[in-house]
Amino acid sequence: MESIKQLALKKIANKTKPLGSLGMLEDCAVRLCEIQQTLDPCVASKKIVVFAGSHGVAEEGVSAFPAAVNEQMVLNFLSGGAGINVLAHHGGIQLGVVDVGVDSDFNGVESTFFTRRTVRRGTRNFAKEPAMTREECAAAMEAGREELRKAAAEGVQMVGTGEMGIANTTAASALFSALLGMEAGISTGRGTGIDNERLLVKTRVVREAVIRYRTIGDSEGPLGWLRAVGGLEIAAITGFILEAAQARVPVVVDGFISTAAATVALAINHACRQVIFFSHKSDEHAHADVLRRLNADPLLDLRLRLGEGTGAALAMHLLDASAKIMCEMASFESAGVSASESEP
Amino acid sequence: MESIKQLALKKIANKTKPLGSLGMLEDCAVRLCEIQQTLDPCVASKKIVVFAGSHGVAEEGVSAFPAAVNEQMVLNFLSGGAGINVLAHHGGIQLGVVDVGVDSDFNGVESTFFTRRTVRRGTRNFAKEPAMTREECAAAMEAGREELRKAAAEGVQMVGTGEMGIANTTAASALFSALLGMEAGISTGRGTGIDNERLLVKTRVVREAVIRYRTIGDSEGPLGWLRAVGGLEIAAITGFILEAAQARVPVVVDGFISTAAATVALAINHACRQVIFFSHKSDEHAHADVLRRLNADPLLDLRLRLGEGTGAALAMHLLDASAKIMCEMASFESAGVSASESEP
Repeated sequence: MESIKQLALKKIANKTKPLGSLGMLEDCAVRLCEIQQTLDPCVASKKIVVFAGSHGVAEEGVSAFPAAVNEQMVLNFLSGGAGINVLAHHGGIQLGVVDVGVDSDFNGVESTFFTRRTVRRGTRNFAKEPAMTREECAAAMEAGREELRKAAAEGVQMVGTGEMGIANTTAASALFSALLGMEAGISTGRGTGIDNERLLVKTRVVREAVIRYRTIGDSEGPLGWLRAVGGLEIAAITGFILEAAQARVPVVVDGFISTAAATVALAINHACRQVIFFSHKSDEHAHADVLRRLNADPLLDLRLRLGEGTGAALAMHLLDASAKIMCEMASFESAGVSASESEP
Repeated sequence: MESIKQLALKKIANKTKPLGSLGMLEDCAVRLCEIQQTLDPCVASKKIVVFAGSHGVAEEGVSAFPAAVNEQMVLNFLSGGAGINVLAHHGGIQLGVVDVGVDSDFNGVESTFFTRRTVRRGTRNFAKEPAMTREECAAAMEAGREELRKAAAEGVQMVGTGEMGIANTTAASALFSALLGMEAGISTGRGTGIDNERLLVKTRVVREAVIRYRTIGDSEGPLGWLRAVGGLEIAAITGFILEAAQARVPVVVDGFISTAAATVALAINHACRQVIFFSHKSDEHAHADVLRRLNADPLLDLRLRLGEGTGAALAMHLLDASAKIMCEMASFESAGVSASESEP
């Protein structure tokens, strides 16, 4: 019996167009067929979950923005004014905002799309001690898993990852250095736009962290690195991706930070590769190199470096397009169009 | 007084995101402001016009598909089964199909979005004689101009170009060779997927045409090349783009063939560059090189090579997103978010 993949390849080869001429859309369409185990994939119902957390390492002066921006930006998400609000709405994508560890009590803040799953008010400064305990990291991952299960139960057919966390490119770079063996000078970039002085500090913080936590990484594996140098929102996204693989829900990975979470998820269980779509190549220095190492072929390259899930939101339109190509386009036979003379 | 561009740059710099972090979306947003002369650009109403024409040069055996496919594909457009139908519908884009010279009488064919502006039933074979007379070429260009005026009168805020014409990559390659000085071996590719034997024939046809019509090109300029080696649909798109510039309507150029029309339009009046957005880098061999020569920075690179306007349809979603970023995102001040400590 032919596999879904073989049948999907055959179906798309018979659409009224030159063979392979829809490029990456065709690859994505076939992958969606495999994930959903159907020849008529549907990802009409889409959701992006933005996980937010504060980072103790921000006190090292590694970011261009003050840590107070975490709380301010969550409020901005909830009032609809952030980039991800605009792009999710534009793409017909449902939005969820989840506090896993912002240093704020969000007193009196209420919103239908805001969930509080606070593990602790920010990670510890990993320039001094591990960012999280094993328990905290596991709790943050579980928050991500719960969000995925909630979305799947709501009938969401494709999810995207988003994040907010001042200083989280520092955590992401440290994870890339640790898990992909990238030198700190390679993995570390300007994030939200730091000057040379801060970049030197940031690179040193990353380099020293990879040395400092080697024992934890060696004994606890990728989860050890995640708790030592990661972030609460990165751990949540890691859990979100792992659970998406289990639930066979396609997951669109946003930019630099989300890719760090995907890298951890892949190190824990490489099988989750099947459900992952890398949305875009970020303008953040190391991302192109990271994507190459992950053998990832991102859909977009728009020099984005905002995070929040903005790249995922834009890529979802393309993935939805690819599903519709598979379902709605006519075949040579049904449309009465002559096939190529050159092809078998 | 500050220009719209300066004001637009200032406005987007104050949005709640790191400076420049939305990359190409920001560039596009500023350009839309300039085109529409407003700080609140809107491209909600979108339309793609697919121009179809037959090519006499098809009889040289330069395509993988029989010439009868032109008529069949127009009927496929009208019944909604082609790639462009699916992607235009997906993007909320109105579709128009215009026959400027398909070798068919379309007897009894009626559709609300089909316009017959037949100049003649296909071009002449430019391996033997000029594809069009001056009058025919002018009439095809005028058909394109009329379509643009019609769209603008309907309130369309952004248009996209599409085409259908078996053998039209041969015409496009000849135009690139003639207008950009590219050797035929460089400008010519596999189109819909021809084998090596046909590729040799196609390259020879292009090389000889550029020599054969040098006198016409020298005496009549880009319009001379357009009529000698172009196509009726390519001439129509050229007129469409030139008129878009006049009407200040942003025009999204699809792939290889549409870029050939844009190249002619730019050679005729370089000022139309202001309204042109190049949608994507096609998988057709020479397109990357052509885009570099035009100093174009395409939005997408999805290995598409279908034409019909499919790349334009996908890129329109991004352009619409950029307009919405400009209009809907909160500023640091309005959202109460702290600005960067590093920036002035």
